[in-house]
Amino acid sequence: MKRIEWNRLDADARRACLARPGAGDQSEVEAAVKRVFEQVRADGDTALRALTRRFDGAELAAFEVTPAEMAAAIATVPASLRAALAEARERLLAWHRAGMASEFEVDTAPGVRCGRLLRAIPRVGLYVPAGSAPLVSTALMLGVPAVLAGCDEIVLCTPPRADGSADPAVLAAAELCGVRRVFKLGGAQAIAAMAFGTESVPRCDKLFGPGNRYVTAAKQLAAMMAGGPAIDMPAGPSEVLVIADAGAPPVHVAADLLSQAEHGPDSQVVLLTDSAALVDAVEAEVRRQVAELPREAIATRALEFARLVKVDSLDEAFAISNEYAPEHLILALREPRAWLGQVSCAGSVFLGDFAPEGLGDYCSGTNHVLPTNGAARAWSGVSVASFQKSISVQEVSRAGLAAIGPCAVEIARAEGLEAHAQSVLRRLENVR
Amino acid sequence: MKRIEWNRLDADARRACLARPGAGDQSEVEAAVKRVFEQVRADGDTALRALTRRFDGAELAAFEVTPAEMAAAIATVPASLRAALAEARERLLAWHRAGMASEFEVDTAPGVRCGRLLRAIPRVGLYVPAGSAPLVSTALMLGVPAVLAGCDEIVLCTPPRADGSADPAVLAAAELCGVRRVFKLGGAQAIAAMAFGTESVPRCDKLFGPGNRYVTAAKQLAAMMAGGPAIDMPAGPSEVLVIADAGAPPVHVAADLLSQAEHGPDSQVVLLTDSAALVDAVEAEVRRQVAELPREAIATRALEFARLVKVDSLDEAFAISNEYAPEHLILALREPRAWLGQVSCAGSVFLGDFAPEGLGDYCSGTNHVLPTNGAARAWSGVSVASFQKSISVQEVSRAGLAAIGPCAVEIARAEGLEAHAQSVLRRLENVR
Repeated sequence: MKRIEWNRLDADARRACLARPGAGDQSEVEAAVKRVFEQVRADGDTALRALTRRFDGAELAAFEVTPAEMAAAIATVPASLRAALAEARERLLAWHRAGMASEFEVDTAPGVRCGRLLRAIPRVGLYVPAGSAPLVSTALMLGVPAVLAGCDEIVLCTPPRADGSADPAVLAAAELCGVRRVFKLGGAQAIAAMAFGTESVPRCDKLFGPGNRYVTAAKQLAAMMAGGPAIDMPAGPSEVLVIADAGAPPVHVAADLLSQAEHGPDSQVVLLTDSAALVDAVEAEVRRQVAELPREAIATRALEFARLVKVDSLDEAFAISNEYAPEHLILALREPRAWLGQVSCAGSVFLGDFAPEGLGDYCSGTNHVLPTNGAARAWSGVSVASFQKSISVQEVSRAGLAAIGPCAVEIARAEGLEAHAQSVLRRLENVR
Repeated sequence: MKRIEWNRLDADARRACLARPGAGDQSEVEAAVKRVFEQVRADGDTALRALTRRFDGAELAAFEVTPAEMAAAIATVPASLRAALAEARERLLAWHRAGMASEFEVDTAPGVRCGRLLRAIPRVGLYVPAGSAPLVSTALMLGVPAVLAGCDEIVLCTPPRADGSADPAVLAAAELCGVRRVFKLGGAQAIAAMAFGTESVPRCDKLFGPGNRYVTAAKQLAAMMAGGPAIDMPAGPSEVLVIADAGAPPVHVAADLLSQAEHGPDSQVVLLTDSAALVDAVEAEVRRQVAELPREAIATRALEFARLVKVDSLDEAFAISNEYAPEHLILALREPRAWLGQVSCAGSVFLGDFAPEGLGDYCSGTNHVLPTNGAARAWSGVSVASFQKSISVQEVSRAGLAAIGPCAVEIARAEGLEAHAQSVLRRLENVR
């Protein structure tokens, strides 16, 4: 852990303190992804079989999980986990439903009615990482809003295990949400399959979900292709920033920093506090708690880069946090709600001493697919809106055209677009 | 114009009929853009000066338009155009304001309050093309929602003319919206300046606006950079698809096809109708009207690729249109509103015989920055939401944590993330 006195840093040191680790040279990753894309584009399912053999060590005749396979796998999931997933889903439904946008109409002039339609994106592709730790919760986080949005076709890809099966808990979560089409495909080849379509995998209009650097690079590459799919957001290592005052319990704060650190050695962990005593107490408590963790080695590596920053005031802490734009922002403050107005850039905010990040990760109801690496300055987390698009509509009567048409003609001519003007004028001749 | 009987086409011919022209080999464009990026990143304003000299033929000491320069330029804009821009802005404000999202809160469990904050993206960059035809209206389309969203800093770049001045009408539109910082910068160098920041141009969090292929490639390249800016949407040539029935006035339909065709030789123009007689009448009318246009040469080239398609039924027309996902969709139908439910993919819809695309382009109130090239399957046009992001919030009491904490612990352990479980459990110990 790096202890930092913010006011002893000059501007360059401050920038360095807030810098994320770069992804390093990506050219090898990109080249590998491009090769996978070319193979899948050219050979479809045949390429997918070869790539799955090579990267997952699994021999698969078909990729789609059959209903019988689904039912048998789900039966092996402990009842307590199934109940927890069902419970989490209820709260996810409540929050996501409450935040759904609505259509509207407004008369912008007499005879000119303008509105907005909402429509589900027809075909969406969800990626749920598995491997060392299958992200069961991610299946819920993507499946719940996709179903609420009403997407026609929801495809979920998750890597097969070496025996050719999918993780049962991921299947249980998918089934619970109403996601019916699950494919045992991982890595860049899963993204390629959903981006181009193959004999068995439908081509998708938008791709969602986290993944390793190959998956991430593949999503960005797919989004760059002309006519390619949209993607939910750019992805990077997970992050937490805690703003704590002198009254924050060190046990809680330390546990929060560790729950981020255990994700991986590249996890970003930052504490900002106006209390020097809290820095001491949290540092001691982190050292105590980390020793008890099964993922101690990973957490310890991430903690090497953790920054415990003493600031002069909480106002300063918020200014730093907004510049950093953390994925998760925990406000371990005595009156946390009173500070909410100062938050301008963050993925998700946790208020008070009893809101650990784990609740948002799993079951408070909010979505855990959130912008990282400073993307929270411009991007939002996943919601039902991520699975919809809005379509503007204008209905214009004869009188409406007479009222606003001359305005369009004036601007069209200023832009040198006479045919635009004529499309109004020829109708106006009909009006008069 | 290509006349097509849809039901004489096999599946491959149908796909070919709906295919957009590819962008062709982009590698030269991308290489040129990368060189510009490297120069601007390394040398900032010095590079911008050299690039502006080279590409715009303008010698500029400073790029930002001064208040005096702004006032003097605006005074040269005809009063009738200024009045039209002001009138258009009023309706844009009405539609964009009516569609603004709101914050919300919902209790997902007793003691668990989850909500959503809305925050403006702090720094946004707007690009307004100039050159042969300055897109005055685009300044309004980007400026109005940026100001409504409440962005802290709104930067607008528009290419300088050879004499080093900016287009006065673009300045008038910017000033009308409340956009105060205008820079005389065009092409990939404008995008690079806003993506990286230079001595004089602020680094922006999100970039908006149309442009030529260099601008488009630059936006996409910027969005690919780790930590780079977000962009509004991928851009391609403009498009219109008209669905017309036997009652549609051929004069209107022809004018609509031509108002699209005059944009450029790569403009996409499609008519779908169940009336063979209408195809004949529209074709004749287009030939008559095109001869009267100042941009006849451009329109004629675009019309070579225009498709006039006879379908068996309007239902079939809507199925084709949704697959094509046009930027602009005109419903020249007797009961257009009754068909709205069949529209699933389009940028903006125009209802009836008195709603030419020109109204949406300029002054109905809806936004004209819309998804092209099939992106309307997954993307929406620009709105106030494009300039905001949502931030999820959870506030949890002791009782709330006791209620939902065990659910989080169960799922965390299924994912092998014990520190996540502990961040809940150590607090629960404090609760009891």
